[in-house]
Amino acid sequence: MKFSQLFCPTLKDNPNDAEVLSHRLMIRAGLIQKVSSGIYSLLPLGLKIIRKFETIVREEMNRVGAQEVLMPMVIPSQLWKDSGRWEKYGPELCRLNDRHDNEYCLGPTHEEVVTDMIKQGLKSYRQLPQTLYQIQTKFRDEIRPRFGLMRGREFGMKDAYSFHDSLDSLKTTYESMRLAYEAIFQRCELRFKMVQADNGSIGGDSSAEFMVLSDTGEDTIVQCDSCGYAANIELALSGELSNSRDSVNELDIEKVHTPDIKTIEENISFLQVTADQCVKTLVYETSDSLVAVVLRGNDVLSEPKLKKALGSDICELASPDKVNEFIGAPIGFVGPVNLPEKCLVIADHHVDTDDLLVCGANEKDFHFKNAKLGRDFNISQFYDIREVQNEDACHCGRGKYVQMKGIEVGHIFQLGNTYSNAMGAKYLDEQGKSQFYEMGCYGIGIGRTVAAAIEQFSDEKGIVWPVSLAPFEVNIIIANHKDAQLVDAAQVLYEQCLSAGIDAILDDRSVKIGFKFKDSELIGFPYQVVVGKHFNETREVEIAHRQTGEKQLVSSDSAIDHLKKLICR
Amino acid sequence: MKFSQLFCPTLKDNPNDAEVLSHRLMIRAGLIQKVSSGIYSLLPLGLKIIRKFETIVREEMNRVGAQEVLMPMVIPSQLWKDSGRWEKYGPELCRLNDRHDNEYCLGPTHEEVVTDMIKQGLKSYRQLPQTLYQIQTKFRDEIRPRFGLMRGREFGMKDAYSFHDSLDSLKTTYESMRLAYEAIFQRCELRFKMVQADNGSIGGDSSAEFMVLSDTGEDTIVQCDSCGYAANIELALSGELSNSRDSVNELDIEKVHTPDIKTIEENISFLQVTADQCVKTLVYETSDSLVAVVLRGNDVLSEPKLKKALGSDICELASPDKVNEFIGAPIGFVGPVNLPEKCLVIADHHVDTDDLLVCGANEKDFHFKNAKLGRDFNISQFYDIREVQNEDACHCGRGKYVQMKGIEVGHIFQLGNTYSNAMGAKYLDEQGKSQFYEMGCYGIGIGRTVAAAIEQFSDEKGIVWPVSLAPFEVNIIIANHKDAQLVDAAQVLYEQCLSAGIDAILDDRSVKIGFKFKDSELIGFPYQVVVGKHFNETREVEIAHRQTGEKQLVSSDSAIDHLKKLICR
Repeated sequence: MKFSQLFCPTLKDNPNDAEVLSHRLMIRAGLIQKVSSGIYSLLPLGLKIIRKFETIVREEMNRVGAQEVLMPMVIPSQLWKDSGRWEKYGPELCRLNDRHDNEYCLGPTHEEVVTDMIKQGLKSYRQLPQTLYQIQTKFRDEIRPRFGLMRGREFGMKDAYSFHDSLDSLKTTYESMRLAYEAIFQRCELRFKMVQADNGSIGGDSSAEFMVLSDTGEDTIVQCDSCGYAANIELALSGELSNSRDSVNELDIEKVHTPDIKTIEENISFLQVTADQCVKTLVYETSDSLVAVVLRGNDVLSEPKLKKALGSDICELASPDKVNEFIGAPIGFVGPVNLPEKCLVIADHHVDTDDLLVCGANEKDFHFKNAKLGRDFNISQFYDIREVQNEDACHCGRGKYVQMKGIEVGHIFQLGNTYSNAMGAKYLDEQGKSQFYEMGCYGIGIGRTVAAAIEQFSDEKGIVWPVSLAPFEVNIIIANHKDAQLVDAAQVLYEQCLSAGIDAILDDRSVKIGFKFKDSELIGFPYQVVVGKHFNETREVEIAHRQTGEKQLVSSDSAIDHLKKLICR
Repeated sequence: MKFSQLFCPTLKDNPNDAEVLSHRLMIRAGLIQKVSSGIYSLLPLGLKIIRKFETIVREEMNRVGAQEVLMPMVIPSQLWKDSGRWEKYGPELCRLNDRHDNEYCLGPTHEEVVTDMIKQGLKSYRQLPQTLYQIQTKFRDEIRPRFGLMRGREFGMKDAYSFHDSLDSLKTTYESMRLAYEAIFQRCELRFKMVQADNGSIGGDSSAEFMVLSDTGEDTIVQCDSCGYAANIELALSGELSNSRDSVNELDIEKVHTPDIKTIEENISFLQVTADQCVKTLVYETSDSLVAVVLRGNDVLSEPKLKKALGSDICELASPDKVNEFIGAPIGFVGPVNLPEKCLVIADHHVDTDDLLVCGANEKDFHFKNAKLGRDFNISQFYDIREVQNEDACHCGRGKYVQMKGIEVGHIFQLGNTYSNAMGAKYLDEQGKSQFYEMGCYGIGIGRTVAAAIEQFSDEKGIVWPVSLAPFEVNIIIANHKDAQLVDAAQVLYEQCLSAGIDAILDDRSVKIGFKFKDSELIGFPYQVVVGKHFNETREVEIAHRQTGEKQLVSSDSAIDHLKKLICR
C-alpha cells in the first residue's frame, strides 16, 4: 500500500467526546470514524487491525475443533420468548417490528439462535460434543455508550457455544477454551489475567473472565500474591479477618441519642468507637422477602455475592421510603436488634460475633451501643458477602490480595442446561432416551480487545502496535519526495518487502518529513525505515523500532534481512 | 476436518417452503438453516463457501486499488434525511428507534454513510480518486422473501463506492470495476452476461448489471446475435420495425359500437383487423401531469423506459376510477383522439404513423376505425418505450435479439454527484475551489451469487461445486469403518492431502457407504476418493470427479499427485 492512496484521515487534535486514550488514539490515527453514539465505521487501517485479531481468534478456535457459523443479527422474538429472555432482558435489547408487524430484536448475544440451530440439526449423542462459533456484529442499546469501541452499541464479538452429553465433557471443552483464550491474548502480547467470575448455579470453577490489565479499566480485580487466585473484586472470596480484637467486657445494651448521626463515619467520631465496632445494616428486597444485610462498619457489600448467597437474581436495595415503611426508621438508623419478624437477617462473616457492637436502633436519631449477637439480636445465616479490599487476606489463608484495574475482553461460562431446558433442545443418549444438552458459552469482544490493546500499547506520541496486530509491520518513509534517488530506492525497498512477505506501507506523500514521522508514530507501525540523507551519502537507511525508540543505520541492501529478523513472526 | 465431527445436518427430503433448486439444495446439503422468513444462519459448510467467494471478491477489489472498510448496520436517520431517501424509500427500509427514541434504520445500502465518511475524512483533489468497499450484512424488508439466500431479508453484500474529481476519472474506475467483476465471476466458473442497465441521468454506458444465466432467473435479458449488445429486456433498445405494411387507402375516421370489447384481442376478432393495426393507450400519472401512452396493439410497455423518457421517477398507471374521471371513458375505450387538453400524448416509435388505426373512442363501448395521425390525432413526442421481444431486431440494425433468463448478482453504476450534492460532500480542487464529488457504486450480492452458482452447478443428485467455491476440494471416504486397514490408509491419505495443501475432508462416520456417497453427491465435493475393496486387493483407491462422473483407480501412493493435477487451482 502506498500512503498517498490510503484513506486514513489522521487528526492533530483530540476529539471532544473521547474520554479514554484508546478512543482518542483510534479516532486520531484514522482507524475509526463515529457515525452515531456508540456506532462507528472501521476505516481501512482500523478494519485491517480488527481482521488481524479476528484471524488469531479464528485460528485458535479452529485449533480446538470449534466450527465457524454465522447467525443472523435480526432475530425473531419467538426464540427469545422460548428462552424467557424477551421479558427479562431490559432496554439494552433493541426491539423492532418488520413491515408485517412481526417482532424481532437485534441480537446482543446468540444463545437462543444457536440452541435452536442444534435442536433442529443434531439428534444423537454420537455427534457430541459439538462447538460452534461465530465472529459477528451485535447490537446492545447501552444507555451511555462510551470509550469508542470499548463500550459501543454496535460491536464485533466472537462467541462460541458448546453442546455436551455430560458435565465432564463440558468441563473438558471449557478447559480447552481456557487454553485457547490464553493463546489468543498471548499472541497479541497483552498483559492479562484470567479471573474467577460468578460460579453460577452449576458450582465449581464454572465461569472466568479474561481481563486486560490497564489503569483505565472499568473493572477492579484482585489477585493473591501467594496462591495466584484472581477474581473480580466483586466476587473475590474473602479470607479470615486478621485483626480480630481481644474479647471485651460484658456490658448491657444501651440506646443512645444520635441526632442526625447516620453514617458509620459520623458514629465513629460521635460515639468514639472504631469502624469494626460498628455494623451497617442494609435493607434489600428479593422477589419474595425483605432482607436485612449486616456488615462490618468498614466493609462494602458485594451485590453479586449477595445475589448468589440468596440464590436470587432479583435483589434490590429498598428505597428510603420502603425502609421507613417496613422498619419504621429512616436509613442510617436501621440495625439488627428488634427487626420486624418478616425480615430475614443475614450477615457477613467478618461481623465480629464476640464484640459489643454499635448499630442503628430502628428509631430515628437513635443507635444502640454494646449490642451483642445471641443476646440482643440474631442472625439467620452468615455468608461471604463483603467486597474484599486491597491487601486483604486471601481466602487461601496464606497470601494477600493485590488490587489492579482491568478491561474485560473475554468470558468463558459453563451454562449447564438452562437454555436447552427452556427451549426443549434434546438429544438421544446411548439408551435412546431424550436428554437436555449441557452447554457452555465463550465470548471475546473483538473491538474491545483491540481498544484494550491500545490502552496497553501506547505512549505520548501515539499507538505502539505489536507486530501481531499492526496495521502494517513496516513503514518506509521517503524523506524527500523531490529527490528521485530516494524515491527510487524506497520503491525498491518496498517491493523487496512485499516479495519477502513483509507487510509494508510506503509513505510516498508529497508532505514534509516531520508530518510523515508524526503520522507514523501516531498510527504506531512497529518498524519505520527512513530512506533519507544517509542513503544519498552511504546508501544506508535508518530502521527505527517504535516500541524502544532504538535506531540503527543499515546498508539498504541488507535492510530486508534486518527487518525479517526484527519482525520474526 | 473429519465428517464425524462436522455439523452438517443433511436432509433426504426437500423442505416445503423452498421453491427453487438452489434453496432446496442449500437446505438439504446442510449449508444454511432458516431462522425466520428471509433470515438464515450459515452453517459451517455454507459459511465456508461464502467465505471462499468473499475472498475472491476481496482479492479482485484489492487488485484494483479499492480499500476495505466496514460501515455500521444501524444507521442514524439523519444521514438518510440528508440524502432525501428517508421519505422516499418504502417499507423495505427497516426503521427502528433506540431507547432514547432516536430514529435509525438497518442499512439496505450505504451511499449515505460512505458519502459522509468521505465528507468527514477527505479534503483535497490530491487524495482522489478514492474507492472504498465493504463486505457486510444488510437488511431489506422484502414483502415476500423467497428463494433462500437469493432474495432474503438479511443478506451479505459487497458494495464499493468511488469518489472522483471528474467524470473521466469516474469512467476509468467504472471500467476497472467492470473488469474486476468479470474476473470475479470467471474465477467462480459462472456463465454470466454483463447487460446494459438504466443509463441514469449521466448518459452513456453508466450502469450495467451482471447476470448469471439460469432458467430459474427472475430477470429476462436479451442479447443481439450480431453486435453482442445485451440488456435487461425492460431496458433493451428497440430496433426498427421490420414488418411495416404497405401504405393504405385514405379512409375517413369511423366510430364503431364495440359493446364490452375492451382488449386488443377482442378488437382483432370483432373488427377483423391485425394487432399492429390497433393501438393501445395507457394512462399514466407523473408528479405533475397526466400522460396518455400510445403503443402498437401487440407491444408491451416498458415502465423503466417510460420513466426514463419522461425523466420522472414518479410515474404510475392511473387507476380505473381516475381514468374514468380524467378521460370520461373506462379503461379499454381510451384512445388518442380528442383527449382532454391537459393530457400529454406520447407514443412508441413502433406505432405505425402511416397506417389507419383502431383505437378507443374515449367513450364507453365505442372505438374508432381508420384513425390517422396528424389528421385525427397528434402525438407530442415519440420514444422507445416498448419492451423488446425474443427475435426482435436489435437496435444495431443487423442482428436479432435472443432472449434468456438471468439472476442479477452484480451492478455497477455511475452515480454522478447526486449523493455528494444532497449531502454537501465537497473537496477542494486544484484552484482551491469547493466541488462536489463524482461518485460510482458497485455491488455484488454475496449469498445470491453462491445461490446462483448452485442453480448452474447442480444435477439430480445434488450440487456440483467448482473447485473455487467448493466447501472441501476432496472427500475421502472410508468404505468400511470397521476395516482398520482402510481406516488407517484413509487417515494417511487425508494427512497427505493437508500437507500438500489440498483442502480435504475425511468421511470417517460409522454409517453405511451408500449414505456417505449420497451426502458426498448432495454436498457436491468436486473430487471423491474411496478407500475400499480395491485398496485391500491392490492398494488402489478410486478417484471420482463429481462433475463428469468419471472414475479412475490409482495406486494410493500416487493419489496425491493425481489430486494435485486434477485440482490445479
